[in-house]
Amino acid sequence: MLKDVQSLNDDRNLSIDKVGIKDILYPIVVKDKNKGKQHTVARIDMFVKLPHSFKGTHMSRFVEILNNYKADIDIRSFGDILDDMMGVLDSEVAGVEVRFPYFIEKKAPVSNLPSIMDYECEYTGYATKSEKDFVTTVKVPVVSVCPCSREISSAGAHNQRSYVKIKVRYNKMVWIEDLVNIAECSASAPIYSLLKREDEKYITETSYANPVFVEDIVRNIAEILLEDDRITWFEVSSDNMESIHNHSAYALISRDKRKN
Amino acid sequence: MLKDVQSLNDDRNLSIDKVGIKDILYPIVVKDKNKGKQHTVARIDMFVKLPHSFKGTHMSRFVEILNNYKADIDIRSFGDILDDMMGVLDSEVAGVEVRFPYFIEKKAPVSNLPSIMDYECEYTGYATKSEKDFVTTVKVPVVSVCPCSREISSAGAHNQRSYVKIKVRYNKMVWIEDLVNIAECSASAPIYSLLKREDEKYITETSYANPVFVEDIVRNIAEILLEDDRITWFEVSSDNMESIHNHSAYALISRDKRKN
Amino acid sequence: MLKDVQSLNDDRNLSIDKVGIKDILYPIVVKDKNKGKQHTVARIDMFVKLPHSFKGTHMSRFVEILNNYKADIDIRSFGDILDDMMGVLDSEVAGVEVRFPYFIEKKAPVSNLPSIMDYECEYTGYATKSEKDFVTTVKVPVVSVCPCSREISSAGAHNQRSYVKIKVRYNKMVWIEDLVNIAECSASAPIYSLLKREDEKYITETSYANPVFVEDIVRNIAEILLEDDRITWFEVSSDNMESIHNHSAYALISRDKRKN
Amino acid sequence: MLKDVQSLNDDRNLSIDKVGIKDILYPIVVKDKNKGKQHTVARIDMFVKLPHSFKGTHMSRFVEILNNYKADIDIRSFGDILDDMMGVLDSEVAGVEVRFPYFIEKKAPVSNLPSIMDYECEYTGYATKSEKDFVTTVKVPVVSVCPCSREISSAGAHNQRSYVKIKVRYNKMVWIEDLVNIAECSASAPIYSLLKREDEKYITETSYANPVFVEDIVRNIAEILLEDDRITWFEVSSDNMESIHNHSAYALISRDKRKN
Repeated sequence: MLKDVQSLNDDRNLSIDKVGIKDILYPIVVKDKNKGKQHTVARIDMFVKLPHSFKGTHMSRFVEILNNYKADIDIRSFGDILDDMMGVLDSEVAGVEVRFPYFIEKKAPVSNLPSIMDYECEYTGYATKSEKDFVTTVKVPVVSVCPCSREISSAGAHNQRSYVKIKVRYNKMVWIEDLVNIAECSASAPIYSLLKREDEKYITETSYANPVFVEDIVRNIAEILLEDDRITWFEVSSDNMESIHNHSAYALISRDKRKN
Repeated sequence: MLKDVQSLNDDRNLSIDKVGIKDILYPIVVKDKNKGKQHTVARIDMFVKLPHSFKGTHMSRFVEILNNYKADIDIRSFGDILDDMMGVLDSEVAGVEVRFPYFIEKKAPVSNLPSIMDYECEYTGYATKSEKDFVTTVKVPVVSVCPCSREISSAGAHNQRSYVKIKVRYNKMVWIEDLVNIAECSASAPIYSLLKREDEKYITETSYANPVFVEDIVRNIAEILLEDDRITWFEVSSDNMESIHNHSAYALISRDKRKN
Repeated sequence: MLKDVQSLNDDRNLSIDKVGIKDILYPIVVKDKNKGKQHTVARIDMFVKLPHSFKGTHMSRFVEILNNYKADIDIRSFGDILDDMMGVLDSEVAGVEVRFPYFIEKKAPVSNLPSIMDYECEYTGYATKSEKDFVTTVKVPVVSVCPCSREISSAGAHNQRSYVKIKVRYNKMVWIEDLVNIAECSASAPIYSLLKREDEKYITETSYANPVFVEDIVRNIAEILLEDDRITWFEVSSDNMESIHNHSAYALISRDKRKN
Repeated sequence: MLKDVQSLNDDRNLSIDKVGIKDILYPIVVKDKNKGKQHTVARIDMFVKLPHSFKGTHMSRFVEILNNYKADIDIRSFGDILDDMMGVLDSEVAGVEVRFPYFIEKKAPVSNLPSIMDYECEYTGYATKSEKDFVTTVKVPVVSVCPCSREISSAGAHNQRSYVKIKVRYNKMVWIEDLVNIAECSASAPIYSLLKREDEKYITETSYANPVFVEDIVRNIAEILLEDDRITWFEVSSDNMESIHNHSAYALISRDKRKN
């Protein structure tokens, strides 16, 4: 029988906080608020804590666990995946991070033509024997029109694509779709894949009527998340790809309601 | 003595078009139109053609040649580098590709405050025993204001950062600075690192007064390059990071004056 | 009615080689040799040629065409997409480029345990009124063991992950799976997501028994592609992420059989 | 005079944790242990905390501060930059993050030929009126030979490039060069840009004689950092780009000595 080098004893007396696999690309199926299920492709990290007495973990077992769940990656199945990891890998701590594009069909604001928008999302879960912790992250592209540029200029105002990132912990299901809506209504205008001329006119005019600084975007979202009783913690940031600079303007607010 | 496996005979009768090293990161010094010299960091590819009779090339020699030139990477030293490669690596064809950020100090349009802008550039050189071919590429961020959005909307117009890429072959020295100027004057407005309020007002108003489609940007540049007798070939493209979409609008024009 | 600025006349007398949309992310379904169909996510570019007399193209129509085909992106549907583009956008030339990860279930060589491997692929299609041209590209990670290191060392040999890229034109259907097989049998060993100890032993020993330079990989593949009558043109390259350097060793062979 | 929209009052009662500029590319000069100074190119983030009563910060001032320090970016000048930011932007908290490639000339182990290696580094600094906190991060490519593969195989062992990342807080100057040395002596072998055959033999044989799991790499480094009295906190991770998989093996250890 082949020697199991990983199971050998280690005498350096150093536990390892995280050990596992990183950046494995994997086809997954996630819950979809409107259609039930959605196929997408994820980049996944999985890790456990390694007690000081073991020389190494068994990397192939992470992939075996993943193979058992591929058709059902979901915030709800995360608990089972984490329990399996702690069991199979004999660890007291486990973590999973799953990053994937999520697609939502949206209707253009005037023509009502449907098209598909992509949002980068991330589900992360950490578990110990007694506790589980989940975070959902959604990155939403929006339009931001600069209030200063509008105020000081005789016509026009610089605007750009901004990437709003919302990370939340919650005590009751929050859908990706919910977070996308919150981000979109907090900026100058939403973004679509398909806009006809009448839609473009509408987006141009409504965004010009709703100028926001990067600071306004994160404050608008923070106000909504503070009011939402499902949310227990959040971190919201916006990265405005300034049309007049070659760098971004950036703002971030984080609040932990559990501390109050 | 250690066996030279690379120099062994190969009997598959297949020459190799390109063989060499890729993606080596290297500090270089490039010629600067205003300051004489500029320090930057480059990502470099180097390759030669391998005749069918050799099993392999000698990869370490590429790095040795690079070490000889590091303080003087330049379109003008490229000829010598290519000659060295053909000589040392015993090949009839050699190529070098050097990609680096190049920095230009620019003054804001109204306040005149100086700041530094970065432009991604690339020098490529190919040589045979009888011929040499050089291409200079510059990628220039600019502002583009959408003419359609402006025309159909009661106020405002969507605008965004666009990345204009100009690639040229020439018979007389063309500076990176020259190509940056051509790109900037062909868009709605140039981009700066540092703008005070009076500058932001100016850029907003002039860009609104100069709306351009992605098609206009490449045509404006093509018109200038067709008139410029130094340029013998060009390819110009623009990638407009649409503020109202999560994808880009794109256009490309290429012309070879040597064919006329 | 809103003015159609794009349809205005342009008097610069410059046709545009490519104009369209770039980097739109889209869920697609592709043909799968073993399972019939496969869901994945693609990054897509679409463009047409714009005659000199038009000021601009209609960008939203590209997305409308894409919406019609989303459930059936395929080398075979590409012809229809290109015809639609030429029709709807009133152009004599059209092009589509679709990049996506493709997943294949593979069995580990000794344990026979199944796991899923990802391969970056690209379908490109160009069309004029009289001709169509298709290219399939597959990027395959493989193991490469260095023959020189093995020959000169008393034990061991440096090895690394290499990314082999095969691009082909063909006159009879070639599957992604076929190209993956060709790449894998031309390197030191294939790569798997899941290997148990007996598999790891097998891969280590067979790869050590099959050392290949980056030059050998591309020549081995070129020999097979030259013999394959379905293939009319190919470009094969390998990017070896050298374990002993922080850069890659690289080789490329291209052959056009149509020229003979 | 142009209206200062940013200085307006905000009544949402929400302070912003971080607001500033992100991803500005900038030429900098850093301290070099051997040569005194080194030119490189950095990607920089700068931010302050914004009190709830202000509508916005003044983004251009970040760039103005940067312009004052460009020739002297250094862990030691960081304190001054942070003080300037708190002063000019009227904030109680400031942060700077500077990421750059750093180059070290190394001699090949047998031939003694010099060549230049690149290491991705990061300096981060955070300050409040009463405290400053600095972290230095170095990412070091090394060779890792798998102990399991070596043990169970009749010949050879899979090996790969691994990226070791060391982040440290300290109470006495720690050079980038010091951290590079610690990483390199904790893996199977260091990595060089230029190796002649005698060097390749040496690296192959010594790395084969020193197999390490990803777990061993981080434990070896943690042992050294725990002993080093300059270090008050560290996080060390390794990302092994497995030659036999298309994903990485990963491990991380973090320890805070200030807590004991």
